[in-house]
Amino acid sequence: MSPHLDLTAPYAPLVRRIESEGSIDGQMLVIDHFLNHRIEPGFIFELAHELARRLSFFQPNVILTAEASGIAPALIVAQALSVPMVYAKKYSTDVEAPSICRSIPSPTKGVETRLAISTRYIRPGQRVVIVDDFLANGRTAAALIEMAREAGADVRGAGFVVEKRFKQGREHIEALHVPVSTLAQVERLESGRVVMTQARDE
Amino acid sequence: MSPHLDLTAPYAPLVRRIESEGSIDGQMLVIDHFLNHRIEPGFIFELAHELARRLSFFQPNVILTAEASGIAPALIVAQALSVPMVYAKKYSTDVEAPSICRSIPSPTKGVETRLAISTRYIRPGQRVVIVDDFLANGRTAAALIEMAREAGADVRGAGFVVEKRFKQGREHIEALHVPVSTLAQVERLESGRVVMTQARDE
Repeated sequence: MSPHLDLTAPYAPLVRRIESEGSIDGQMLVIDHFLNHRIEPGFIFELAHELARRLSFFQPNVILTAEASGIAPALIVAQALSVPMVYAKKYSTDVEAPSICRSIPSPTKGVETRLAISTRYIRPGQRVVIVDDFLANGRTAAALIEMAREAGADVRGAGFVVEKRFKQGREHIEALHVPVSTLAQVERLESGRVVMTQARDE
Repeated sequence: MSPHLDLTAPYAPLVRRIESEGSIDGQMLVIDHFLNHRIEPGFIFELAHELARRLSFFQPNVILTAEASGIAPALIVAQALSVPMVYAKKYSTDVEAPSICRSIPSPTKGVETRLAISTRYIRPGQRVVIVDDFLANGRTAAALIEMAREAGADVRGAGFVVEKRFKQGREHIEALHVPVSTLAQVERLESGRVVMTQARDE
């Protein structure tokens, strides 16, 4: 791997915004004012371009994500790399057969989420990179990896805007032999404060 | 209104692709290979930039859509106009209060879809333009308009990539005093063929 490619280098503009603007709701980090409810296009483009720069190492020819909050970063990564983007549909009855499905238990919501991908769009031999907004326990990303492999594709890597290091998502995904890139890492949430991994000295 | 602004001029590159590549599944037009399952970033950027050009007339300072299939075109329209984009969440329990909600009956699926917007992100006096991928019966767009108005915002217009003229969406939205722009209009689906409104002669 290139000595200049650090897949998990903290991206300072994002780290600073999470530290100064992130709010905490129980065990949830809330940054939905720029990432996943309200979106600031300029900042999302900047983040996705940095993620695309790192993920270009894996030479994907398709970007795979899950609706809904993965769509914005995945679209811009795909545009930056000039490849199509596919999003797994949730709750949907309108994915034409043949399709590949997975159900993901959501402990916080107490329900199962069903993901579906048409096999028209993830094909044998494709070089897939997964993109999503958050990496927490990794269940969604693991389901996407399994689905892409069931379709015969080669999953080369996975990139996320924000990683929660106090969850086991990275370990879960790396155990599936998929390298992980993240732009910012939350070490822990403590007494109303967000503690981030800081940039290493150069 | 500018004589050069035609909000519903058929956009030829899109009309041609729907005619040549659209498939029909019952009363559904399927173009999910470039619009809303697999996405071709280059083409979506082109479509959204044309929509942004038309919608700039309304001088929005926020673009509002609903997850999931509205996110891609709305994000690029917002980026082109240098304004933020907000998407109403579906099925979500994680929209922080205070929020505004609507339930939309879906006759085809026999279920209700719940939409939620935080009032932190749609504010009194904001100039809102709605963007979505499809205009069919207009229920989702009407709910977004109602929610934005409940938040005190001024809904200036609504733009859609594809309009189904054989549904009553346009009439529904215009009855709410919101002008509608669409890039391509499906007149009807007949015996496996998609009949589109053709570009008028200049």
